Parts: sequence; structure tokens; C-alpha cells
Amino acid sequence: MAELFSPRGVAVVGASPAEKASFAGHVVQSLKEAGFPAVYPVNPKYPEVLGLPCYPSLRAIPGVVDHVIVSIPAESALTLLDDCAAKGVKSVHFFTAGFSETGDAERAELESAMLSKASAGGFRIIGPNCVGLFVPKSRLVATTGVSLEPGPIAFISQSGGHAHDLPFHGGPRGLRFSKVVSYGNALDVDESELLQYFCEDPETEIIAVYIEGVRDGRRFQGALREAAARKPVAIYKGGTTEAGKRAAHSHTASLTTSVAVFDALCRQVNAIQVGDMETLTDVLVALRFVSPLPRGTGVAVVGTGGGPSVLASDEMEKAGLRLPPLSPEVQAELRQLLPLAGSIFSNPVDATTLVSPGAISATMRVLGSVPQIHMLVYHLGFHPVSRWGRGLVSSPALLQAVIEALAGARQATRKPVLLALCPPPDWDGMKDFLAAQEAFVEARFPVFHSLRRVATAMARLVAYARQ
Amino acid sequence: MAELFSPRGVAVVGASPAEKASFAGHVVQSLKEAGFPAVYPVNPKYPEVLGLPCYPSLRAIPGVVDHVIVSIPAESALTLLDDCAAKGVKSVHFFTAGFSETGDAERAELESAMLSKASAGGFRIIGPNCVGLFVPKSRLVATTGVSLEPGPIAFISQSGGHAHDLPFHGGPRGLRFSKVVSYGNALDVDESELLQYFCEDPETEIIAVYIEGVRDGRRFQGALREAAARKPVAIYKGGTTEAGKRAAHSHTASLTTSVAVFDALCRQVNAIQVGDMETLTDVLVALRFVSPLPRGTGVAVVGTGGGPSVLASDEMEKAGLRLPPLSPEVQAELRQLLPLAGSIFSNPVDATTLVSPGAISATMRVLGSVPQIHMLVYHLGFHPVSRWGRGLVSSPALLQAVIEALAGARQATRKPVLLALCPPPDWDGMKDFLAAQEAFVEARFPVFHSLRRVATAMARLVAYARQ
Repeated sequence: MAELFSPRGVAVVGASPAEKASFAGHVVQSLKEAGFPAVYPVNPKYPEVLGLPCYPSLRAIPGVVDHVIVSIPAESALTLLDDCAAKGVKSVHFFTAGFSETGDAERAELESAMLSKASAGGFRIIGPNCVGLFVPKSRLVATTGVSLEPGPIAFISQSGGHAHDLPFHGGPRGLRFSKVVSYGNALDVDESELLQYFCEDPETEIIAVYIEGVRDGRRFQGALREAAARKPVAIYKGGTTEAGKRAAHSHTASLTTSVAVFDALCRQVNAIQVGDMETLTDVLVALRFVSPLPRGTGVAVVGTGGGPSVLASDEMEKAGLRLPPLSPEVQAELRQLLPLAGSIFSNPVDATTLVSPGAISATMRVLGSVPQIHMLVYHLGFHPVSRWGRGLVSSPALLQAVIEALAGARQATRKPVLLALCPPPDWDGMKDFLAAQEAFVEARFPVFHSLRRVATAMARLVAYARQ
Repeated sequence: MAELFSPRGVAVVGASPAEKASFAGHVVQSLKEAGFPAVYPVNPKYPEVLGLPCYPSLRAIPGVVDHVIVSIPAESALTLLDDCAAKGVKSVHFFTAGFSETGDAERAELESAMLSKASAGGFRIIGPNCVGLFVPKSRLVATTGVSLEPGPIAFISQSGGHAHDLPFHGGPRGLRFSKVVSYGNALDVDESELLQYFCEDPETEIIAVYIEGVRDGRRFQGALREAAARKPVAIYKGGTTEAGKRAAHSHTASLTTSVAVFDALCRQVNAIQVGDMETLTDVLVALRFVSPLPRGTGVAVVGTGGGPSVLASDEMEKAGLRLPPLSPEVQAELRQLLPLAGSIFSNPVDATTLVSPGAISATMRVLGSVPQIHMLVYHLGFHPVSRWGRGLVSSPALLQAVIEALAGARQATRKPVLLALCPPPDWDGMKDFLAAQEAFVEARFPVFHSLRRVATAMARLVAYARQ
């Protein structure tokens, strides 16, 4: 399977000029922008696409083609696969949809014929009905707006939308990928084979999975067990309700397994199961930046704002974490450090001075020394970076000093420090927010976008670490 | 109580120049920017604050002062209240904290003495330990970044942070306020009196409440019952877990009531109970823009993206809504309108063409005619406004045409149309997103920031409408 991830040449069949706004045209543009060296648009209608020579057929391409990206109607699939065999390609990705997922028997037969051709021609099929491969290291991309810096996460996604959205939304929070594979109807390459591959892949340290259905339950069970024993596996299975199952079946022809069976499997093999994309993103951020993992559910919350402190308490305990009350001795220590008026000393610790590096550092160290506290959450209520004036980003020096204070506390206490920064609703605020987030991520802090989301992700991670 | 909301003159005691970054200085600045006509900074240290003459004492102010905002240490509170009585003010808001919430017996006694002075002097106290009043119509503000356009929502908030954050985060989604009152320790003006007032207030159509504790259970029960019988009341009570109760007690000296008792009360009087600020905001958006309320739990989901469609199904059904399957006749109708490949016809309806006004309009009308469907959700997956190129905002004309298509469907079907638009993680995307959101809000559409949030808010609203 390794040969899928570093093709020497890529043909894009069905490419059209930019003004047509087609998927294939977008892929050509993305590959060009990413600096992929050998891109060959294929379309008999055009002599040129986006400044590149365009070929009338696959066979007409002069160079080596290892990977073919296909966006032509399903009816032409078999003819194209004959060309693929003739050209000696290694893999064919069908963006094209309209196969077994339509529920049409003829379309399902067409899929079987495609599989036979792939087997005879000695190449693999990815999809159909998916967005295929994203391999930053190889500059192999299908879309823009995602970071091309390689990283430790592999993402196996039955949905093309999710395959794009996880790097897109997770990128600014520091998620970086070894390989992302959107595999759609799983005609040939499927979730089990991908799990087996990433379990061994030296470039992958964390495995993320989005599946709707499983092709072969027993094989999947074995692959998941083995992968989860070697690397953290975070898994989101869509289609857990009646309507969700119906949608999954229409989306990727998936027959979803029983929810109870799947839940039991995840618990048994210690895969980190989540219920939506948001939590999948959050768990990956935690897996990437929280090290070592907390050894218990005790959390101390430090920040500004009485209302948010109450909310933080409720969110943490509802998720299954605990906020140990502070002993009179610890409270007395904090009273030395923080103003009496407007402060809360009882975990959460809340004080208006908790935006200054000195107060942050001292408070975090006191709390970090409490044995019942296994992790520290720092938050700024609902206006993370723009309290009166411009808060944390009023000067780059202040922001840097706060980051150093938090990094110092993390090192001194040997306990994870997690940030809850709420994105603002306005454009100016967003600029400040993104600058602050980038600086925190640069310093390897996990940044979450709400107190609820810290709580949900960390509760999952603590349960994972306990097994 | 009406006299609280339209003061002729406001004194800000403890005001300092901008470079001191104090709350009181911020208030003076905010009042000036809002165009409040008579602002009097009071501080013996300065002859002038932010370009306004600054007075050494309250008594030295030449003009009428109806409302006093106080940010000086608790120790000086009693002397100041003597001045308030002498000046004949109507209300005094203490931003100042450090009273009963500290747990100190002497500070609690100080509060009692303050209350006696207010009673003798014939004025009301708001707080202490709060951010006081926000009355857009009177230009009475304590902060910046919130819309000054008056609207139908009154917000009673024990937390000053939340009192700012609801207008701040809800503003771009169309939430507008008649009055916001942050009342902190509730020494004099409390939650029950405010509920009674807003129940009668002709400028208020919707009442939002954030409380941590209740001063007088029986009185509150009566006030809530009466208010909820007259107007929709959405209520978030903080401090529902052990740690949350502790935090609430340290924040506003609140002794929280039993969760079970409070839940039962809300169910009994049909107050819309929520568990966090996010859901409070969402429920208010729905109350403001969904009319008439849906008469059942049936929802149709329309948009683009297979993965998001599966997620939408799961989120809706987990929240307690239902996605009725479509009859063969309705499916056949949709097949006439939408492409076969890459589409889902089974509710959710998913097709790549569902970004064009014609397809949206036709699809929505077909679904809206199904009796089991009570509301329509339109979504764009996780990249609402910036799919390939710039999606919906690639031209203002396209965005406007989509809005007209949705407005037409809303009118033709007489069923609510709800939008799920996910904010993007980048600054450029945010610009597009905010432009689209503003245009949708202008056309009176409720905009939610995720599929989960539509589901949670609408499930609450359907339950409310059923009683």
C-alpha cells in the first residue's frame, strides 16, 4: 500500500479550466499550488488547463503516471480503467459518484466489473465517491486551505467532506498529518487495510478514523485491536441513529453495524470513541500536545470571570472530571498572591489579575503542587484576547510573557496545561484571537474553543490513559 | 423600578484616565462613545478624565444625578452612600466587589448597613459585585462592542461577564436588548423583582435569565410562574454540580437550590431551561426569529456534504427531533430536481447543486409540503461560505438570490427555515462568514453555528411550544 502515497506523476481525468469550477480543475490548481512536480490534466476538450498542457487521453501522456484522479461520469469508468492498465498506473482514485450508493443494481454491478479490472491490471482503486489522498510530504493534495507541513496524524475517512474539514479546522490548532485517505464506497482499499497500514507506518503516531460502515466486521475488529494496541486511535462512527443509518447508506452504501456492538468493541480494544467531528478534532489536539497524559480526573481551573468559573465547574464535572476543593493551606497561599475583592479561591480560581504573567505563574505552581490535581486549565472566559483594550494581545511582549509563564508552570509542575480560548464573534477580534492561538500552538499548548470542549476531550483522554 | 432605566445624569465614582485601564474609566469611555448626554466622572485625584470635567465628590456635581456607578474599595461604601442620599440619586450600582461573597462576616455586615442607608435615602442598590445596567434605548452602557439598537430581549444576569457576553456573542446573530441587568450579590434589586418588572415591561417580549442562587425561593417561584405564563422565559442556572455550587457561592455568595427542585419548577411553569451560555444564546435566536414555532419534532435537513448529512441526522435524533423518511413519491419529485450522482434523497437531502437558488427553492418547497415535516434546516457542511472559490459569497448577487430562495420557501411552506453555518477557522473566511451571517440575519433568519446547536435549541423550543 505504501506505493499509494508517493506517486511520481498524477493524471487528473476530467480536468477543466478554472472558470468551470469543477472538482478536477480545483485538484489541478491545488497540486500546482502545492508544488507537485508532475501533473497531467486529461480532457479531450481542452489543449491546456490552468497553464498546463492537457492530454486527450491517459495513454497520450508522455511521462510516468502512478496515480490517476478521476472525475468523469460513472458510465465511462470501465473504458478509463483499460487505459489505466495500459499505462501501468499504481492507483486510481474515483471522485466520481453515482455507484452502489444510489441503490441501483446496475451501478453496483459496474463496481464489481471495476474491481475485476483493477485486479487484472495490477492497480488499486480508491473510492469511488470520495476525495482520495492528501499526503503533505508528497505535495499530493486535492484541495486548498490546509497546511502542507507533514505531521504525525493519519486520518482514515469514509467522507470526503470530513477528510478536508479535519485538516482545515484542526490546522490552526496545530494538527498536522502524515496521510489523509478519503475512501468513500470502499470498493477496494478499505478501512481495515488502511488501519493495518497506519499501524505499521513509521510516519504515523496517532490514527484518526471516520467510518460509516464496515465491509468485513471480523477483519475490522482485528485491525482495530492491533492498531489500538500500538498507537492511540480516535474514532468517530457516523450513523448511530435511524436517520443517520439511512443517510450513511445513501452516502457511501454503508450498512452500519449495531451501535452497541461497536461501542463494546471500542471499549474492549481501548479505541477513543467520539460522537462528532468537533470532539474528534479536540481529542486529536489533546493527543498531540498533552504529554504525559494526566493520570487522574482531577482538574484545576484558573482564569478570569465568575460566571465562566461557575460554568467551567459544571462542564468539567458533568463530563466526569473532578475539581478537588482546595485545602485551607492552599487557599491561604493563593490569598497571598491574588486580590481579595472579586476573586474566587476555591477551584476554579478566579481573579482579575490572572491576566498578568506573575500571577498566572505563581497560581499555577501552587495548584500544580496539589497531588489530587492532575491537569491545569487556563481560560479567559468568553473574551479571551480582547478584554478592555486588547487583553493578551495588547502587546506581543505581554502575550509572550503569558506563554512563558504557562510553559514554566507546565515544566515545573509536570502537569498538562490546557487552554480554553473562546473565538470572538467579530472580525477584528478574530485577528487577535488567531494571533494568540498561533503563538500558543507554537509553544505546543493544546488550545480548545470552549470550556465544554476541554472537558469532553480530557474526560475521554483520561479514560483512555487509564486502560 | 422603571426609574432605573432612564437616568438623566450618571456619576462614575472612582473614574480614572484611560491609561489606568480601570473599569470605571472604561465605563466613562463607553458612555461617551454611546452618546449618553450627562456623564460625571468623580475622583478627587484628577481634574479631568477622558476629556470630561472630573469632580472631587458626588456633592460637587452641578447637574442632576439619577444613577451612580461605583468602583471604589468596599471600605468607602457607607460614606459614599451618605453622599448619594444628599444628592438625591435614584440608584447606585456597585461594581465594587469584596462583600459577602468573600465569606467574611464583617463584609456581610457592611452589606446590611448599606441596605439600611439605601432604604433611608430612598434609592435602590444594584449589586454589589456586578456590572450593572445596559439599556440601549437610554444609551446607558458599561462596555463597548455591543449593539446599541434596542430590541425585545431583557436579560437578568447574576454574572457581569455573562451580562456582557450574551449581547457580545449574540449581537451578530441578531439578538437585541430592551434592558440587561447584572445584579451580582442581589443585596437589594434581585432576580424576583426583575422578573416581575420584565413580565410587565412593554418593551420586553422575551426574558433571559442567568442565576446562581435565589434569595427567596417562594417569591422566585411565583415570579417565574407569572413571567413564564406571559412571555417566553429562557433560563440558565449555574452551579448544578458540587464544584459549580462552590464556585457560585464564592462568586456571588449564592446558596444554590437543589437541582431537582429547580428542574421541576421550570418544567411546571414551562420556562425554557438550558445548561450553558451557548444554548441560551441559541434558544434566544430561535425565539426571536422562528415564528410561528414548529408544531412538532419533524425536521427536514437540506444541504451539501454526505458526511455532514450523516452527522446532521445523528445530532437531530440524539436531541429528540425526528427526520421523517421521505415517501417514494417525494423522492421521485426530488430526483427530478437534483442530480443522481453524489446526492442523498432520503432526508437529509444532500446534493452539490444545493448551493444554487433554484435547486434550494424547489427542494425546500417539496419538503415543506410534507405534513410530517415541521421545520426545514439548511446547512453547508463545515465550509459554509467558502467552498471552492468563495461559495455563497462569491458574489453578493448569489448570496442575495439564495436568501430570497430561502425566504420564498419559508413563506410558501409556512414552516420555519433554520440555518446551520459553521464559522471558519481563518481570518479571510471569517470575513466572508460574517458578511453572509449579517445578510441572513437582516432577512430575519435564525443562524446557528453548528448542526448540533440547531438540534439542541430546536428540541428545547418544540418542547416549549407543546405546553
